[in-house]
Order: sequence, then C-alpha cells, then structure tokens
Amino acid sequence: MTSPKYTNALIVGAGEGVSASLARLLTKERLRVSLAARDTGKLTSLCGETGARAFSCDATDAAQVERLFADVERDHGAPDVVVYNASARTRGPFIDLVAADVERSLHVTAFGAFLVAQQAVARMLPKHHGALLFTGASASVKGYAQSAPFAMGKFALRGLAQSLARELSPQGIHVAHFVIDGGIRNPGRSEPPDKPDSMLDPDAIAASYWHVVQQPRSAWTWEVELRPWVERF
Amino acid sequence: MTSPKYTNALIVGAGEGVSASLARLLTKERLRVSLAARDTGKLTSLCGETGARAFSCDATDAAQVERLFADVERDHGAPDVVVYNASARTRGPFIDLVAADVERSLHVTAFGAFLVAQQAVARMLPKHHGALLFTGASASVKGYAQSAPFAMGKFALRGLAQSLARELSPQGIHVAHFVIDGGIRNPGRSEPPDKPDSMLDPDAIAASYWHVVQQPRSAWTWEVELRPWVERF
Amino acid sequence: MTSPKYTNALIVGAGEGVSASLARLLTKERLRVSLAARDTGKLTSLCGETGARAFSCDATDAAQVERLFADVERDHGAPDVVVYNASARTRGPFIDLVAADVERSLHVTAFGAFLVAQQAVARMLPKHHGALLFTGASASVKGYAQSAPFAMGKFALRGLAQSLARELSPQGIHVAHFVIDGGIRNPGRSEPPDKPDSMLDPDAIAASYWHVVQQPRSAWTWEVELRPWVERF
Amino acid sequence: MTSPKYTNALIVGAGEGVSASLARLLTKERLRVSLAARDTGKLTSLCGETGARAFSCDATDAAQVERLFADVERDHGAPDVVVYNASARTRGPFIDLVAADVERSLHVTAFGAFLVAQQAVARMLPKHHGALLFTGASASVKGYAQSAPFAMGKFALRGLAQSLARELSPQGIHVAHFVIDGGIRNPGRSEPPDKPDSMLDPDAIAASYWHVVQQPRSAWTWEVELRPWVERF
Repeated sequence: MTSPKYTNALIVGAGEGVSASLARLLTKERLRVSLAARDTGKLTSLCGETGARAFSCDATDAAQVERLFADVERDHGAPDVVVYNASARTRGPFIDLVAADVERSLHVTAFGAFLVAQQAVARMLPKHHGALLFTGASASVKGYAQSAPFAMGKFALRGLAQSLARELSPQGIHVAHFVIDGGIRNPGRSEPPDKPDSMLDPDAIAASYWHVVQQPRSAWTWEVELRPWVERF
Repeated sequence: MTSPKYTNALIVGAGEGVSASLARLLTKERLRVSLAARDTGKLTSLCGETGARAFSCDATDAAQVERLFADVERDHGAPDVVVYNASARTRGPFIDLVAADVERSLHVTAFGAFLVAQQAVARMLPKHHGALLFTGASASVKGYAQSAPFAMGKFALRGLAQSLARELSPQGIHVAHFVIDGGIRNPGRSEPPDKPDSMLDPDAIAASYWHVVQQPRSAWTWEVELRPWVERF
Repeated sequence: MTSPKYTNALIVGAGEGVSASLARLLTKERLRVSLAARDTGKLTSLCGETGARAFSCDATDAAQVERLFADVERDHGAPDVVVYNASARTRGPFIDLVAADVERSLHVTAFGAFLVAQQAVARMLPKHHGALLFTGASASVKGYAQSAPFAMGKFALRGLAQSLARELSPQGIHVAHFVIDGGIRNPGRSEPPDKPDSMLDPDAIAASYWHVVQQPRSAWTWEVELRPWVERF
Repeated sequence: MTSPKYTNALIVGAGEGVSASLARLLTKERLRVSLAARDTGKLTSLCGETGARAFSCDATDAAQVERLFADVERDHGAPDVVVYNASARTRGPFIDLVAADVERSLHVTAFGAFLVAQQAVARMLPKHHGALLFTGASASVKGYAQSAPFAMGKFALRGLAQSLARELSPQGIHVAHFVIDGGIRNPGRSEPPDKPDSMLDPDAIAASYWHVVQQPRSAWTWEVELRPWVERF
C-alpha cells in the first residue's frame, strides 16, 4: 500500500481557518506551500510562521489565475496539491438579494474553482499525478431558505468536483470535495463555553484533508462530510 | 381537495421541445401564455398555433429580465406560473474548455434562473400565490466526465430551486424542479425505430409539469425525476 | 402519447388514509380494486362504498401472500396495479428497543414488500405490463434519532424499489416509490385549525399516485416526494 | 485537537479482507482485538498473527450476540470500537429469488447490525465514549438490477447508521458508515495485471476506518465513500 508523494501545494482562497491549518500541516509534512488571496496583507504572519509564500490573485479572473500558476511554477515547480477554498455569499430574503452580489457569489464560489482547477489539471495531467481538493459547506448539499446564492455557488462547486472526479480519477488525479457542515472555529469566532467542540476545529479539518491526500489510489474518497458531534443534521 | 387556479404563464427559454408542449397544454387549459427567448423568430409558428405571445429577452441580463416581466404584466397581468427552461452547455476534455463558454453556461443555466425567479417572486409573494418551475437534467444530480460546465450550471439551478422551495413554500408559492434524465424527442432528433419511446416525449413531460402545478398545497412535490423506461440509471 | 391502461388494482396494507383514498379514486377510474389487510374488519365500510373486495393477509407470510394473489387472480384476474402500503414502526431510545419489534418493523415494512412484489411481478412480466407502487416516508431518505427501526425498514423498501425500477422498467413494468414527508390527515388525526393543510390530504396523495400510473413509458417517474407546503425540510 | 483514545475493538463478521486488515492495524495501534464469526475456524491464522481472540457468534441471533458481548467484556472489558462487517447476499432475476434467502440477506446484513449495535451502545452510552463502524457497499446507495436483496439489506444498514449518528453523536459516540464502492482485493480474488489497483486494497480501507476513528469530536465524519481510481461511478 504505497501512498502518493506530494511535494508542492497551492491553496487558493487563503486566510484564517482551514487554509491556515492546512498551510501549517502541509509545511510540517515537508511540502512547499503557496497561498493565494486577493489581499495578501492578512497572510504575512502565516507566511512568517510556515515559510509559505503568498501570491495576490483574484480567482475569478482568468488572466490572474493563469499568472498565479505561472508564478508558483517558476518559484516552486507546478503544484501537485491544489486546494480551492474561496467562497463568497450573500444572504437575505430572496426578493431583497442584489443581482451583482449573487453573480459575485457564483463567480467566487464556483467559477473561480473552474479557473483554478483548469490551470492545475493542465499541469497534473501529463504526469498522471496530483490532488485537487475543494472546500464545500452545508449549502453544498442542502439549499437553505434565505441563502439561495450560496446554495447556487456551493452546489455548482460540487457539480464541478464530481464531474472532475469522474473524468480525472482514471487519469491518476485524486479529486476530493469536503462538506464542512458547521461553523469553523477561528480566532474571531469562538464557541460557547458550555458547548465544547461545537464548532469545527480547523486543524481537525486539515487532518482529514491530509488523510484523503494520502489515500492510495486503490481506495480513494471523492467526498467527505465533517461536522461537530453536537451539530443537528 | 381544492387545487390552485392559475391563469397566466410565462416560459423563459422557449423553443421546441418541453416549452412548446407546455405552451400547447397550458393554452388548452385556458392559461394565457407568454414565451421568452433571445431569438423570437423561431417562436412564430408556435405563437400562431397557440395564441401565445413571444418576448425577446436575454435571461442573463437583469435589465432585460426586468423589462420582460414589466411587458408581460402590462399585457396579461403578472404571471402566476413561471417556468425557467433555458440552459447552455459546453462539453469536452476539461483542459480544453474555454473559460468564456463555461461562464456563459453558468449564466444561462443558473444565474438567469435567479433573475427570472426574483422578478416572478416579487409579484407572487404579495398574493401568496404562484408556481415556479425549473427544468433540470441528468446533470442536475450527477456530474459527468467531460461535462463539468453543465454540471456546474444544473447543480446550481437545483440549489436555487431547493433553497426557494424551503423559503417560499410556506409563503404559498409552489417551487418544483424536474430532473429530465434522458434525451428529449423533438422534430430534429428522433429515436431509433427499434427502441420505441427511448426518448422523452415532451408532451409527457409537460403533463407531469401540469400535474405538479395542480397539486393542492397539502401535498406538494418539489422534485420529480422523469426518464424513459429503457434509460439506464 | 398513449398512456397505459390498467384495469385491476391490489392494495396491500389497506386501512384508512392513502389506501382508502386510492381505493376510491381507482374505482372511480373504473379499475377493479382488491384490498388486503391482516384485519379486514376495518375495511367493511370502504368495501361497501367502493365495491372493492377485501382479503385477509399477513404480508410477511410467503404462503399467505401467495394465496392472496391466487385469490385475487381467480376473482378478478391478475392485478396490473399493485400498491404496497404496509408498514410497522417502533420508536424510542435506541437501547430500549425490543429486538422482536425491530424485526417485525423490518418484516412488515420491507420483507412483506418483497413477497408482494415477487407475486405481482411474476404475473406482470409475461405481459410486459404493470405498475408497482411503494409508499415511503420521511424515514425513507433520512434516518431520524430514536427511530432506527423505521429507518431500517423504509430505507430497505426504497432499496427494493430502486433495484426493481432498474431491473423491471426495461421490461415494461413501471415501479414508483413515494416519499410521503409529513403527517397524513385522517379521520382520527386532524391538523391544528390555525395551520390549514399542514397535513397531507390522502386524496391529494392518491391523485399523485394516479398521475404516475398514467405516465406514458417515455417519461416515467420512479420517485416522488410529497410534503405539505408548511413542512420543514 | 485531542483525539479519542480507544483500547478495545470488536469486529463482527470477521474473515479475510477488511476485517483482517483492521485486526492487524488495530493491534499495531495497541488495541486489544476480538473477532466474531459464525465459523471461527477460518480465523485461526489471523488470531495467531495478531493475538486477536476469536468468538463464535451468529449475529442474527439476539441471545448469541448478548453472550458475545458478555464474553468479550469478561475477557477484555467492554469494547469501545465496534465494527459491523457481516453481510449476506443473494442475486438473480427478481422472480427467481428464494424468500428464505432474501430474509437471510436482510437479517445478516441489517438486523444483526441492530443487535450488535444495541449491545455495543448499552456499554458505550454510560461513558459517552465509543465508535461504531458499519461496512456498506455500492448497494448501500444504489439499488442494482438483479440484486434487490442486497440493496434492501445495505440500504437498511445505512438507515440504521444514519439514525444512530443522529441519536448518538451528541452522546459522544462516533457512528460512521463506509460505502465500499468496488471489489475488495483478497487472497482469492486478485485484479487483472493490466489494471493495477483496480480493486480496493483492504489495508487502505482499514487506514480510512482508522482515520475516522481518530477524528476529534469537533469534526466527525459519519459517511465515507471509497472506490478505486479507475472505478466507474
């Protein structure tokens, strides 16, 4: 049972939370890590801590995504683990939603994932080697009231991931989609003291991403749900 | 067991196939029918046959969708049955897909549905009365290889429909999503003679839409799958 | 678009509610109707009203099910519409459940459906004609806390129905499964006056069964969800 | 991020394949392991290799399951990791299935899981500590033609697992269901030489079970799909 060996990760939509935990875990596992965000200012301390390098990129812009991959490739080689973690949402009564916000939600949550995946796959396909990971949410599998735009974006992302899993698994590329079903604990958002572990620990999420990445190809997972023990589902 | 009485239908994304069958069935059931398409030229004969009126509209353009509803309303009153039937797809190996085509697929298949639904709901909500129908496909629930863009669009449409069903059913608006799982028979696309009824008859699809529209509110369906008897699933 | 013509229905697990509404609707549509229940005493008035004939049968007993079909066939010919409507449940904290009750729940809800379906299919297959309908519940697709036995039975029933749909549709037998997601209104169980139509009207459910039965084979539904407009889902 | 510490595992339905790999992995991780099967003869070599102890038990018999847990408890203490891995299937054209075989399939695949889970939970609940793992299959989520009995059993097992996950997660018991979607490699069933890793390596499956068991409670998985990279899905 040999596991794939990955050396070079790119996380798009990096900030606090899952992406920071992943950056820490992946550098600990000796992968080179690149982080991409529209605003890289917030990544300074994480880069200092982990040695990751930050790249500025609007993932909804094809030219910027192309440049991002070219830049990462020049510095580190082509990434063989690529995580799409960006999303945008807008909420409220359906008739009050603003069309431009809805369009943006679709673009950041799903269309950007297409752009990033395409650049990633173009580099993975010749080597029949690579892992593509997508961060989903409760909204990936359940369309909630007053949250149509997020459901649209996250459902679309899941459709992308499932289609890629069918197309690319037999090419040696591992595609996985994570349904994060609950709130994620982060520095600015802590759980009630009387409800311990009622929010997802981003380190625990990262550990599950890492497990999936290590799976040998005879037993790949394409979808994992993660939720706190006390979350209603 | 009283059923809702609808009087005024709008079908967006009208052409041959399901929309034409619906137009015929709805006019036979005495609803006024409006049809919207980018190119209304192809609707002339259907309008002649059914008395439906055609409107030119690019459903991905918020201003045009707004004007469409204003125009329909002025002529016929606000529609109380609105069908979103438009979609666009682009296929092929993932790395060969063209970003602009993928964006267009998302916009026509899902974002346009949002724009149309919002105009429709704004008029239905004050009356707590109306039906919103969405035409899905096999790709709504299964992301196929070499078809990521269509999966993205149709998954997103399903997320929209499910979210609206949760938000609007308790407001008296019936939201339904149809998974058309198979090829649709139409004048230019007939089935092999040795495989009778191996493609969906659009009149049969229309009959199921009409059944759902007639359901009394104590027993509403939000999703229906339809497939030919011989279709693998 | 020709619809199948059915003439002879058998409803197993008959009592009040869905089965009574179906019996009324089917006799109105001129089908001969047979009803089966362990205790036929409760069916007297329904039989008087509809002209249906009642048969005593424990659906979990293979010999009794065999005799039921032989009896129906002798009187009316082989049934071409067969509805499995029986179920049994036991609820409560998991560790308090009684094994014999759990076994019975599985047997009445799922194993009996197998026995009935097999007798039905043996008669339908030579003619490539027939409809097999299964009554599911919320528990068919969602395993609730404190209700493991019902989830087991109803999930199993759905697995049976899905397998039969795949195997028998291409043989001309229409298999459909109904997810009744909510409480069913019946003489002994009425809805709160301030929540009109918050329970499923069994006549409305029967109308959807009948619609599915009438679908032409080019556009068959294998699963329909039905829920009241105000039901959370 | 502290992970639960488990010390004592029981695998019901032990033989070759997943259970043997699990026994090896769990003993390597220093858990005491007990194995249960109807026929313990086949477990001799595995017990010799791992130090696991074998118990004879027909999992469909409530009294035998009760005794199994009492025996394990007396020797090793109450198990805090319990795996239900037993199943039985019967295949063929629906009308040729033998009722007794179908009943047995339901009993071994699902009812036995109930019996085992109930004994396990009775011991885990007071400590709010334990993991319950269920081995599913492709048939857990898809009812195939000519395989209704296995679909019934595996769907039922999934309903049980989902219900238990909802009921017991907030009590500190981790319930997980594994959809093994493909053939499992074992000594008697090897894959074609030109299709490497086209069957699931049971060691890889065991590694995913172990990952899930180690998840901290803030990010639990209740369901994991595993399939070979080249498996159609």
